[in-house]
Amino acid sequence: MNNFDFKNPTKIIFGKDTIKQLQTEIPENAKVLLLYGGGSIKKNGIYEQVKSALTAIEVIEFGGIPANPEYATLLEALKVIKNENITYLLAVGGGSVIDGTKFLSSAALFDGDTPWDILSKGIRTEKGMPFGTVLTLPATGSEMNSGAVITRAETKEKLGMGGPGLFPQFSILDPQVIKSIPKRQLANGITDAFTHVLEQYMTYPIGALLQDRFAESILQTLIEVAPKIIADPSDYKAASNFMWSCTMALNGLIQKGVPTDWAVHAIGHELTALFGIDHARTLAIIAPSHYQYNFETK
Amino acid sequence: MNNFDFKNPTKIIFGKDTIKQLQTEIPENAKVLLLYGGGSIKKNGIYEQVKSALTAIEVIEFGGIPANPEYATLLEALKVIKNENITYLLAVGGGSVIDGTKFLSSAALFDGDTPWDILSKGIRTEKGMPFGTVLTLPATGSEMNSGAVITRAETKEKLGMGGPGLFPQFSILDPQVIKSIPKRQLANGITDAFTHVLEQYMTYPIGALLQDRFAESILQTLIEVAPKIIADPSDYKAASNFMWSCTMALNGLIQKGVPTDWAVHAIGHELTALFGIDHARTLAIIAPSHYQYNFETK
Repeated sequence: MNNFDFKNPTKIIFGKDTIKQLQTEIPENAKVLLLYGGGSIKKNGIYEQVKSALTAIEVIEFGGIPANPEYATLLEALKVIKNENITYLLAVGGGSVIDGTKFLSSAALFDGDTPWDILSKGIRTEKGMPFGTVLTLPATGSEMNSGAVITRAETKEKLGMGGPGLFPQFSILDPQVIKSIPKRQLANGITDAFTHVLEQYMTYPIGALLQDRFAESILQTLIEVAPKIIADPSDYKAASNFMWSCTMALNGLIQKGVPTDWAVHAIGHELTALFGIDHARTLAIIAPSHYQYNFETK
Repeated sequence: MNNFDFKNPTKIIFGKDTIKQLQTEIPENAKVLLLYGGGSIKKNGIYEQVKSALTAIEVIEFGGIPANPEYATLLEALKVIKNENITYLLAVGGGSVIDGTKFLSSAALFDGDTPWDILSKGIRTEKGMPFGTVLTLPATGSEMNSGAVITRAETKEKLGMGGPGLFPQFSILDPQVIKSIPKRQLANGITDAFTHVLEQYMTYPIGALLQDRFAESILQTLIEVAPKIIADPSDYKAASNFMWSCTMALNGLIQKGVPTDWAVHAIGHELTALFGIDHARTLAIIAPSHYQYNFETK
């Protein structure tokens, strides 16, 4: 087993009807920017739950963060943060909204002139503006890790960022949100989480017996619940196991002490940046050939 | 799956030759009370490693914390903390030293007259004096959780305490410490960790597929490495998997969303309080009958 450090301070609030707990997690005197994506939260009841939990807190909204969160859009949100003296960020969405919020958390306290430097120069974020999340799409694990991937359309770049300042203070995971997710996004989420585990597991043996078993546990659970979720996303048992598996797949735990790969993601990011293919679909395109190549040549 | 909250902010520093990292984890201006047990750390080289990592920091020592940390002994340490204006605690030992340090962390900031009230009245510790640990005996998981069990010989009581203020700030886990642990304590450690998992797993099904698999992963890993550790405690692969399994067995993760029992521990604590039997041995005495009774009657 390799040496490792592990620290993950994010508070997870998991289960039925937990969105209302927002009101005890956000500081009373905070001025909040609520960030969301294409507006599905206004159709599925999540927006209403969030707003009614925040009635005692000053909230400004910024919607329209796209899949593969776009730098240009995020710069607009950054202007709002600065002009409105925002002190706390709340991401209500999937991995794209959460990743975009992480960029804003970092950029809000960034000293330099060009926030893109955080990505292009690999500047680690030691301290960011505090933020929490309400997860609406299990997939990326971003709700319990300190990494983000941001896209810049004008340069066709898709780059990663991170640092200990970018863990969410809290993340609320209510598996009931899954019942209103379209089938394509469910399939993407399952594929993304499954590939996250493969990238940390399909490497070479290092004698980390427990980490290997944990990785296999997540793979087995995803294999078990995936057909049930696709058939009936309101199946709470399947939905709750799917959601927790996605979080555990990329919260740092299973990669500690073992070699990791991430080649499938690295290649996939380029396909998304160049051709706009869904992130998880790029993984499904790349993974089979990648593992076949590795099996045959290593 | 039941609803749950999960937050564990302890930083784990795991691997070979990691004790020297103490110097970057403890604040420079801290006045440290170094707590240890019967003095084995002075024979196995751990004390020397700790001291040489702390040359730049003011350190006072308090040794002699016994197995099943004793309230009367801890009150002596509490006097030192107050008289010497200690600001940081460092536990170098196994679960007993770490549990004793947690009591001191709480008692040092406790407002009342009688620190035993923390235990007898079940007062949760929201904020304690900051502390870190260097683990010398894998077993209890105390290095990555916020609970402690304290014994009071004069009243034959053994009671638990806890709260979010009692997570170690960091814990250093160097599996090389295992090579000098006596066989009886190794067997105790394996038994304690194995029973921790059973208490969170051998209950009733609640549809928490991933938690069940994680529990099984720890049980399987302990079963795999236990004979190797007993045969050769310098086997690093076995030792590192044993150490990480003990931590993961009781850091909160596998109990989230599932029913837990703890009857074996509750009965075992009484046997220790009354007869002074090693903690893990009480578990080994009680567990078979407990599970036989449950199987036959439930």
